[in-house]
Amino acid sequence: MSGVGPSSDNLLPSLSKAATVNKEAILKMPNKIPVGILGATGMVGQRFVQLLEHHPWFEVAWLAASERSSGLPYAEASRWKLNTPIPERIAKMRVSDAAPDGAPKIIFAALDAGIAKELEPQFADAGHAVITNSSAFRMQADVPLVIPEVNGDHLKLIDKQPTRKRNGGFIATNPNCSAIGLVMALAPLHRAFGVDAVFVATMQAVSGAGYPGVASLDILGNVIPFIPKEEEKLEDETRKLLGVLENGAVKDATFKISAQCNRVAVEDGHTESVSIKLKKSAKAEEILEQWRSFRARPQEISLPTAPEQPVIYDCSVDRPQPRLDVNRGRGMSATVGRLRPCGLLDWKFSVLSHNTIRGAAGAALLNAELLKHDGYLD
Amino acid sequence: MSGVGPSSDNLLPSLSKAATVNKEAILKMPNKIPVGILGATGMVGQRFVQLLEHHPWFEVAWLAASERSSGLPYAEASRWKLNTPIPERIAKMRVSDAAPDGAPKIIFAALDAGIAKELEPQFADAGHAVITNSSAFRMQADVPLVIPEVNGDHLKLIDKQPTRKRNGGFIATNPNCSAIGLVMALAPLHRAFGVDAVFVATMQAVSGAGYPGVASLDILGNVIPFIPKEEEKLEDETRKLLGVLENGAVKDATFKISAQCNRVAVEDGHTESVSIKLKKSAKAEEILEQWRSFRARPQEISLPTAPEQPVIYDCSVDRPQPRLDVNRGRGMSATVGRLRPCGLLDWKFSVLSHNTIRGAAGAALLNAELLKHDGYLD
Amino acid sequence: MSGVGPSSDNLLPSLSKAATVNKEAILKMPNKIPVGILGATGMVGQRFVQLLEHHPWFEVAWLAASERSSGLPYAEASRWKLNTPIPERIAKMRVSDAAPDGAPKIIFAALDAGIAKELEPQFADAGHAVITNSSAFRMQADVPLVIPEVNGDHLKLIDKQPTRKRNGGFIATNPNCSAIGLVMALAPLHRAFGVDAVFVATMQAVSGAGYPGVASLDILGNVIPFIPKEEEKLEDETRKLLGVLENGAVKDATFKISAQCNRVAVEDGHTESVSIKLKKSAKAEEILEQWRSFRARPQEISLPTAPEQPVIYDCSVDRPQPRLDVNRGRGMSATVGRLRPCGLLDWKFSVLSHNTIRGAAGAALLNAELLKHDGYLD
Amino acid sequence: MSGVGPSSDNLLPSLSKAATVNKEAILKMPNKIPVGILGATGMVGQRFVQLLEHHPWFEVAWLAASERSSGLPYAEASRWKLNTPIPERIAKMRVSDAAPDGAPKIIFAALDAGIAKELEPQFADAGHAVITNSSAFRMQADVPLVIPEVNGDHLKLIDKQPTRKRNGGFIATNPNCSAIGLVMALAPLHRAFGVDAVFVATMQAVSGAGYPGVASLDILGNVIPFIPKEEEKLEDETRKLLGVLENGAVKDATFKISAQCNRVAVEDGHTESVSIKLKKSAKAEEILEQWRSFRARPQEISLPTAPEQPVIYDCSVDRPQPRLDVNRGRGMSATVGRLRPCGLLDWKFSVLSHNTIRGAAGAALLNAELLKHDGYLD
Repeated sequence: MSGVGPSSDNLLPSLSKAATVNKEAILKMPNKIPVGILGATGMVGQRFVQLLEHHPWFEVAWLAASERSSGLPYAEASRWKLNTPIPERIAKMRVSDAAPDGAPKIIFAALDAGIAKELEPQFADAGHAVITNSSAFRMQADVPLVIPEVNGDHLKLIDKQPTRKRNGGFIATNPNCSAIGLVMALAPLHRAFGVDAVFVATMQAVSGAGYPGVASLDILGNVIPFIPKEEEKLEDETRKLLGVLENGAVKDATFKISAQCNRVAVEDGHTESVSIKLKKSAKAEEILEQWRSFRARPQEISLPTAPEQPVIYDCSVDRPQPRLDVNRGRGMSATVGRLRPCGLLDWKFSVLSHNTIRGAAGAALLNAELLKHDGYLD
Repeated sequence: MSGVGPSSDNLLPSLSKAATVNKEAILKMPNKIPVGILGATGMVGQRFVQLLEHHPWFEVAWLAASERSSGLPYAEASRWKLNTPIPERIAKMRVSDAAPDGAPKIIFAALDAGIAKELEPQFADAGHAVITNSSAFRMQADVPLVIPEVNGDHLKLIDKQPTRKRNGGFIATNPNCSAIGLVMALAPLHRAFGVDAVFVATMQAVSGAGYPGVASLDILGNVIPFIPKEEEKLEDETRKLLGVLENGAVKDATFKISAQCNRVAVEDGHTESVSIKLKKSAKAEEILEQWRSFRARPQEISLPTAPEQPVIYDCSVDRPQPRLDVNRGRGMSATVGRLRPCGLLDWKFSVLSHNTIRGAAGAALLNAELLKHDGYLD
Repeated sequence: MSGVGPSSDNLLPSLSKAATVNKEAILKMPNKIPVGILGATGMVGQRFVQLLEHHPWFEVAWLAASERSSGLPYAEASRWKLNTPIPERIAKMRVSDAAPDGAPKIIFAALDAGIAKELEPQFADAGHAVITNSSAFRMQADVPLVIPEVNGDHLKLIDKQPTRKRNGGFIATNPNCSAIGLVMALAPLHRAFGVDAVFVATMQAVSGAGYPGVASLDILGNVIPFIPKEEEKLEDETRKLLGVLENGAVKDATFKISAQCNRVAVEDGHTESVSIKLKKSAKAEEILEQWRSFRARPQEISLPTAPEQPVIYDCSVDRPQPRLDVNRGRGMSATVGRLRPCGLLDWKFSVLSHNTIRGAAGAALLNAELLKHDGYLD
Repeated sequence: MSGVGPSSDNLLPSLSKAATVNKEAILKMPNKIPVGILGATGMVGQRFVQLLEHHPWFEVAWLAASERSSGLPYAEASRWKLNTPIPERIAKMRVSDAAPDGAPKIIFAALDAGIAKELEPQFADAGHAVITNSSAFRMQADVPLVIPEVNGDHLKLIDKQPTRKRNGGFIATNPNCSAIGLVMALAPLHRAFGVDAVFVATMQAVSGAGYPGVASLDILGNVIPFIPKEEEKLEDETRKLLGVLENGAVKDATFKISAQCNRVAVEDGHTESVSIKLKKSAKAEEILEQWRSFRARPQEISLPTAPEQPVIYDCSVDRPQPRLDVNRGRGMSATVGRLRPCGLLDWKFSVLSHNTIRGAAGAALLNAELLKHDGYLD
């Protein structure tokens, strides 16, 4: 009889690569660090649970959700929508009140912006590290908005947060799910050639809207050419992410950007049609080389959740495609394809990234790993 | 008992508005004009059959398809995929060989480009009026590429065709299904303000690829960021359509245009995210007014297939949507929405049009009606 | 210029056949009968609005919905999800409180069962004719559950209702959307041969669950093998519908029936795989003949919403299909196909019907027309 | 830097559990057994490639497909449609002619029935072990049709095959993708209580039809109530699979069975609504216990591809669902749910299984493992 436990059924192996990659790290951490999840029952909360199972550093010790769920076992409170089973230990864990009292120091947050605006400062005030996927504080001057491969140095903004000085608490954010794939594709080009203008039209998956989110009657056989506040977020966050840290503040990138956001009948994976103008002219092969060779600190220091290759260029004529490419790099790589000259700007291409892994829970987790590595979680 | 015949089941009333609209026309044509359909069994061929049922001027008298279908009753040769029944008279009609012999003078064509390249000139040489949806000759200098509301005057190019002079035969084309919605939205703005640059990202329905066309495994839960030759057609045809007829030749419009074409899981209706720069600055209300008031000869002379309003602006925040708007103007109107400032060019908006009605069979039919009105089919 | 009004855009011509079919009826009713819609903003409520536009007998004079909508114009209160425009007159109509005061005598109801249980008796008590799609009172002994072609005589149960005697008020119901197609297919066979056993597995459209209803994440690329209370309704209602009225009470049919209900990614149209045992053996051709020749009072007296042919047998090998057949008989016919011997019972076949037209709003409307014809609405 | 190779991106870990489960087996096989794949470029052929990557016993050494592909690198010949990358070694492998010459002794076959009928005997005649997913010989008296957990002993039929005696060659088959889930659910009940009658209505995924297979226009928003020859296969194969081997021949089970097969818009996973009559009455808990405790030789001898639990009962009210459950047991378990009394037979339930893993390539692979274990491949 096979001795394989429940996780052997996992389709997505919970980023378990980490188990083999970072043996040193594991050896140094016989006792994992307890973490909590705020908003644990939603789509992104579920991804946090999934990705944290078997994580070599962190261990879920606390789950909180809305009042309605409080006190219930997680299996009952959440309507689990992922195609891997709920980890048994988590299934039985009782959902706590969404208050700092009794919560672990490290909190992953997946709250609606309105609630986040109220709750996240409470946790930071109480000394917690709030590593959040919410949009509430992304654009606040002293809050870092970070993709570790792109602007990990922006995490230093944390030192400017009043709570950090007082009791160690802070808020760190990752970008909107539609910004993250775009910025991963732009970052190496921006560094090498300077981005001067960006046009982007998105085709976004329904999981980006949470659960129940998009009604089936609205999306079967349909396209919805509107996602509330999405275009603004995509434009603003892209400029902050590609900005530079100067004198303790982020100076946003200044290029022009225009976004059009659409919802399509895809479960997971945001596809984007992108057109760019570069400050310094570049040949196709030079651009491809920037993408292929793009590596950053998460890869150098082998963070458990870091994909081997952050940007994968697929040279097939009809890629990337969500159904085929969304799980590349275990959902943490952005896949780019179809680089070709643009009749209006310089180049056009398509980019795809997993909206609830690289675009949400995996993004926050990678932020946490970098924060841990850099001593912000000690 | 109701005396209603089989057509009472029709979801789409076969443009039967015509029956009431153009009573004069009908009175003048007690005997309808016989027409033929080349490529009658494909998706666009089926739309021709559907739209020509109850047409006040034309009557299907001849159907041709590939050799395999020749001699079979149409019901057997076609795998009818529309949600209205095959007209009974047509169902029993035998499919003819795809050769001019015995064909009516007026031919609607819905052939693959490769076959069209060979067959259409044979029909024109034999004196037929070939009104075609195929791309084979769209960009040829002496072949008109026409949207009646936009550049109906280009039909005069027909007079330059050698066959026309010899025996009356000619070829007239309508644009690609992805170009037609875009150009209908651009045309009134181009006339009023001058279009200076266009960015367009499309999300195209599967019916645009014919039958069997796109495999279900390729599109369920997916986006395909590539449609062969589509971006080139969309860019080139847009400039020819918005060009001007000078000294017997079309001078293409000169603005820059960049297209990105995607296939999505939608049955009918191409949605496009568009961004434009105008030569002369315009306020939102001025643009809306151009769209709202846009009428042209097909409306003025009440062509049977002409929609009352070629461009409908929907001021809801999340429109147009294929599921809700594709059949506006009985599939002959383009629906525009979400006009808003663009961070890169001047304005952005979304446009939707029915790809096999306004974008294919209905387009050719409206061309035929204008040709008839202008004496080219006599 | 065409003089065609807003309804010319209608994909579904609002049962406008009525306008031509029943000219006598129209002539007799220069002033249409005002009706109200309870639950007017939901999916079925919207269908009522759509189907009542241009109705030759009835005219919407009152719309009510939940408190939240009260006082708002209908266009604002409803999130219109049909692919024909909201009738202009209705769009501007204010939504009333859901109380009998000021409501017309005839009320079409499309309420959730829980609310219906409370509200519908209030309206009946106040003297209104409540013609409802809700399940709340379908199985109550003195409430008729009716498909006009099948058991129109059951409407006489109304005379047993205490309110009817007191002030004319009553409740009349139509079946669940999954029962109606099945029963239309069974009815002629039951009459001719006697049904002895029924197995049915359904594949039901998402519109049957209302709006927002089924979450897109639950149905894209998925099947849900469960719909709350649906199997019970389907089994129980089928036996009541095929029961006989004896001594002023319905004696349910006694055959065994087993239902399995599934939700699939279809917008409109419930497809059902059916297997039946007959009391009296029948040949295929005899069964087909029963379906083909099936007509009943609604056809005989030409009720405006009655389809010409209630059951259409399609002899193609792969029909019925929702995408192709759901709108037959303007959504009021059931389409049957694939009659073949069953290895377990006698015969198996597939049946399809439109779940929000024949299975909901159209069902209630046809009930109303029969009630009107029989004097119950005078 | 991580040392993880290309397979780290795999969503589905290629049944790599085997690597840890069966260490003994691996140690005994330092040199893996070369195998070939006939029909390697189709959907099932691709699954064979995917599932054989990292297989502890077998190694792909030969790929064959139609003439058109012959000589091309596999990456070019196949249009890879799985969401894990083509194994690099395989991508470069040249596709061979589909002839026994030069092929390994063990052949996995995934051919269309017509071609299989011709080719498979050629390979068996030439001394090859043909382990096939094709339907061509499934019902032939001396050809085993096997699910290892259900009727592994039927493999002894091989000894009756003339080629086996002559040169060792033989044909062994696995069932149709729609039969396999049903039979896995029935097998433990048949053993314990005796199955007396079965009704099954299927909702089958598009991947079961191969590539390009089902046209997107036929399945988007649709159900197709017909799959050619599927109902016959499902009925006949179920009785052979649950038959008994007596005197060197399979005596089919004799219960009545009636199948209705439908295609739905699902990528992977056949869902089935089942109703059964048992010879010996059983309580719900007894049935559940049979499913829960069902284990067979593949589990006992730890075959690499065997799932830990062949039948998983999910007690949630709305399961199994393809999107959530298809990959259980890495696609090798059947998931059952909703056991409840049937109004017609005894019990009804739903069952789901992965149609291209457990229902095709994984089925053949498990057959091969059992054949290997039992000495048929030596």
